[in-house]
Amino acid sequence: MSEFPATARTTPTRLRERAVYDAERVFAVLDEALICHLGVVVDGEPLVLPTIHARVGDVLYLHGSSGSHLARLVAQAERAAAPGSEVDAGLPVCVTVTLVDGLVLARSQFHHSMNYRSVVVRGRASRVTDPAELDLALHAVVEQVLRGRAEGSRPGDAKELAGTSVLRVPIVEASLKQRSGPPSDDPEDVAGPYWAGVLPVATAFAEPQPSPDLTPGIAVPQHVLDAAAAGGRPTGVQ
Amino acid sequence: MSEFPATARTTPTRLRERAVYDAERVFAVLDEALICHLGVVVDGEPLVLPTIHARVGDVLYLHGSSGSHLARLVAQAERAAAPGSEVDAGLPVCVTVTLVDGLVLARSQFHHSMNYRSVVVRGRASRVTDPAELDLALHAVVEQVLRGRAEGSRPGDAKELAGTSVLRVPIVEASLKQRSGPPSDDPEDVAGPYWAGVLPVATAFAEPQPSPDLTPGIAVPQHVLDAAAAGGRPTGVQ
Repeated sequence: MSEFPATARTTPTRLRERAVYDAERVFAVLDEALICHLGVVVDGEPLVLPTIHARVGDVLYLHGSSGSHLARLVAQAERAAAPGSEVDAGLPVCVTVTLVDGLVLARSQFHHSMNYRSVVVRGRASRVTDPAELDLALHAVVEQVLRGRAEGSRPGDAKELAGTSVLRVPIVEASLKQRSGPPSDDPEDVAGPYWAGVLPVATAFAEPQPSPDLTPGIAVPQHVLDAAAAGGRPTGVQ
Repeated sequence: MSEFPATARTTPTRLRERAVYDAERVFAVLDEALICHLGVVVDGEPLVLPTIHARVGDVLYLHGSSGSHLARLVAQAERAAAPGSEVDAGLPVCVTVTLVDGLVLARSQFHHSMNYRSVVVRGRASRVTDPAELDLALHAVVEQVLRGRAEGSRPGDAKELAGTSVLRVPIVEASLKQRSGPPSDDPEDVAGPYWAGVLPVATAFAEPQPSPDLTPGIAVPQHVLDAAAAGGRPTGVQ
């Protein structure tokens, strides 16, 4: 897949020129983000929760607990689906990821904005039940938290895997909206008295803080040192 | 108001000890965040969009365009509301703000997590129509983008105000969920071979980039220099 279809649901009603459907660019934003915001409908009203995610190919995995309200909602939706109607199985979700790149400080208050990259994925979430897929998804989630981390930590045992719920959202309907560059002031403001520009924003990592109960002699591993030295998340982490 | 009620809708089904209803702490998170994620229900399915917000007292203002899909949805909800039934007027929304404070790198993959502060506000959004309230809200939005910016830029004129839609969400039902501190590994993992700790995460500002068309001689103003020198968003910005 190289491009997502521009459906009515993923076409913005304004500023359409900011919308991008190219899969590689959509994936890059999903991969760079530390968290996503997961939207569901509960009793007819919206609920949005921060969630840890990871992408593998064109599937988005969402990390949760098997005891959570959300896991129960998904189980409910799965039961309600007609047998064999795979298209409609799962809970309708909207997964949104936003990277803020800068404060856009225009001369006019009206043109103040943010530089950002935001991906909206609309689809259906179902539970990962296949053990091999669960392993793959959890590996991806740990690597998404920090690249190199899967090798630097203990994999889950059977009991832990049973207590983890991972949701699977095929990335079929997705779009990227973004803004970059300097403020877009009206011509009559450009000669005005106000300063205009962009204050760049980034997600920064600081020095690692070892656990207080860390066994003496265990050094900070290379993957953590690398991330701290880079000072932040590399673009296109996977 | 000093504490929000712990309603069924704002009480997490898991990890309840992470939920906080204290208004000042809820407000501090809303004030520190650069953006929120706004959830609505469209045709029975969830939609989550990044949005610029500002808080004034116990009201949350959401910045948009009067031509947007969202503004039309709100207008629709307002028309559908029974006259006089103020409680039910407006579009059901969920506004979620998340600040990521650290990557929690446990010895076990199962206990990997994030340190974060996340506020969920569930309520009804209506359009701001009173000109004085619109002024107040837009001032707050510009100050939320960057403190000191309202004085450093040109206020909106009548045409610009007409092209701006601000939504009003009274903060009645809100909760803060958070995690901080080191990883919580199981006792049997603590003596294991893996490093554990937290990699702190923050939102960082870099050097301001003046607009290419900036009139020569206009210096970077103090409020921008201050933000850049601070290197990031101060905690509790308002």
